[in-house]
Amino acid sequence: MTNATTVTLQSGSTMPLTGLGLWKVPRDVAADQVYSAIAAGYRLLDGAADYANERECGAGVARAIGQGLVTREELFIVSKLWNTNHAAKHVEPACRKSLADWGLDYFDLYLIHMPIPLAYVDPAVREHPGWTNDKGETQTERSPIHATWGAMETCHAKGLARNIGVSNFCSALIVDLMCYANVHPQVLQIEMHPYFVQQGMIDVCKAYGIHLMAYSSFGPASWVELDHPATKTLPSLLTLEAITAMAKTHNATPAQVLLRWATQRGITVIPKSSNPARLKENLANTDLTLSDDEMSTITGLDKNFRIAAGGDPRINIWA
Amino acid sequence: MTNATTVTLQSGSTMPLTGLGLWKVPRDVAADQVYSAIAAGYRLLDGAADYANERECGAGVARAIGQGLVTREELFIVSKLWNTNHAAKHVEPACRKSLADWGLDYFDLYLIHMPIPLAYVDPAVREHPGWTNDKGETQTERSPIHATWGAMETCHAKGLARNIGVSNFCSALIVDLMCYANVHPQVLQIEMHPYFVQQGMIDVCKAYGIHLMAYSSFGPASWVELDHPATKTLPSLLTLEAITAMAKTHNATPAQVLLRWATQRGITVIPKSSNPARLKENLANTDLTLSDDEMSTITGLDKNFRIAAGGDPRINIWA
Repeated sequence: MTNATTVTLQSGSTMPLTGLGLWKVPRDVAADQVYSAIAAGYRLLDGAADYANERECGAGVARAIGQGLVTREELFIVSKLWNTNHAAKHVEPACRKSLADWGLDYFDLYLIHMPIPLAYVDPAVREHPGWTNDKGETQTERSPIHATWGAMETCHAKGLARNIGVSNFCSALIVDLMCYANVHPQVLQIEMHPYFVQQGMIDVCKAYGIHLMAYSSFGPASWVELDHPATKTLPSLLTLEAITAMAKTHNATPAQVLLRWATQRGITVIPKSSNPARLKENLANTDLTLSDDEMSTITGLDKNFRIAAGGDPRINIWA
Repeated sequence: MTNATTVTLQSGSTMPLTGLGLWKVPRDVAADQVYSAIAAGYRLLDGAADYANERECGAGVARAIGQGLVTREELFIVSKLWNTNHAAKHVEPACRKSLADWGLDYFDLYLIHMPIPLAYVDPAVREHPGWTNDKGETQTERSPIHATWGAMETCHAKGLARNIGVSNFCSALIVDLMCYANVHPQVLQIEMHPYFVQQGMIDVCKAYGIHLMAYSSFGPASWVELDHPATKTLPSLLTLEAITAMAKTHNATPAQVLLRWATQRGITVIPKSSNPARLKENLANTDLTLSDDEMSTITGLDKNFRIAAGGDPRINIWA
């Protein structure tokens, strides 16, 4: 018996359990990494306007399709609405710009990246504004999420996004979203790793039929490029005895064990790697079968520790 | 110099730093407790429809006013919209019913009790429905918070509530609320004690000019009547050496120290007590002045432990 490598969303769409994360993939290598990942068997690509590499990722996809490695229909491509485009009138243009950058005519999934509305920045002036306005300040904008979601539904209705969802929403925002959503949010993408198990969020998503995508599956190791303090204060999950011993038992890598801990419970993971061998290993995580005891041991590492925390109190969504 | 006993809300209203909490006050003693508290000098009364004692609390107020102890204008009376009345059309009737029960023509502050919309229950059929519908089930209703808030604003505009606010909102809900609120939320009431310091929430409220009210200031001790597991697993704050030693230094009670830790930072507290001496002691917490070191010691007890957690995943606002 082969373990499942995909899940079926409530919409009926098929979504892989393992994908390639495109956060922090430098522009100059993004096309090659996407192409290599597709060649290695990846079908899910997790992008975002804010990752500032959508044109290059799209080039990688075009090369793979052009060479007959894969068809568009076989891929599951994700993008995300950045914070500066929350005003209802900016959502569809932002979605269309990301589509144009990718060279696509639809996304399989389009997410609200964060429940944080920042002042609009014209992409023709500053294409990837990040967290600041033209004066270098973090400036909020009064765009409520229900209005943003309404515009997301329009993107869905126009066929620009076959599925829509949210990222970095807490459970109370999900409870509220379920009160006004006319199109069901298919996916919630949040930070999730053994130091941050969040069983409560899993239960909430299950209750509402929302599929979970985990980011930062390797915990602190996923934040090394950002030099996050947690990379110094928390022991790396990839070298933790509990994980390495388990990996040895299964003749697997620690990364595979960490990914499988999520996918075995039906949660999608989106590791990234620039190493072709590791790309293949990560994708193969679904070949493993961890025992109930092993699953519990990993879950027992929980510290309820959110790495993606803090910041300006006006936009601190995790206070 | 006398320490402040009140704060000025952004609206200009004056609100006491110490009030009487009416949660779990039995109906048969509520009138007497409210009357005694007013006689002892309390001016802030924190009620709610769900506390199922608003008529009796109102009787206590009427007696105190009737006897000339206080005038209506000197009191600051709070009530809260229960979960079953979140539909926009039910908000004003619910507010008017609570006003009628209290025998008042306005509240000083009316709060959304929780960001949880439950199916409507006609109060003529079951006056205090709590968490269940007529079949004994927890049933949700699709009433988004922005619509509920709009109806709260109507109550404000009609003079039924001089101030409006929210309770049990997380920071992400506050960030969203600030995007659609036309009337500024004046107050956020949340669980807060030395085991659950929530500096992040304090910063968010400060950034938005929202005044904080702390409930469960004594931590686990505030949950004894509910036989909450935390009352067994966490050491009582009222008998903790760090607190009792500090109380001794100031010739004060441990309760006073715990309350003062909040009020000294401008946070309103709402202890309850059926003991007349303790009522007076609690109110007098603002006479204390804790040193910076003492404040830090108390804050250092933080366990980031929320007592009011969990529950049905469809309405788990703290997952």
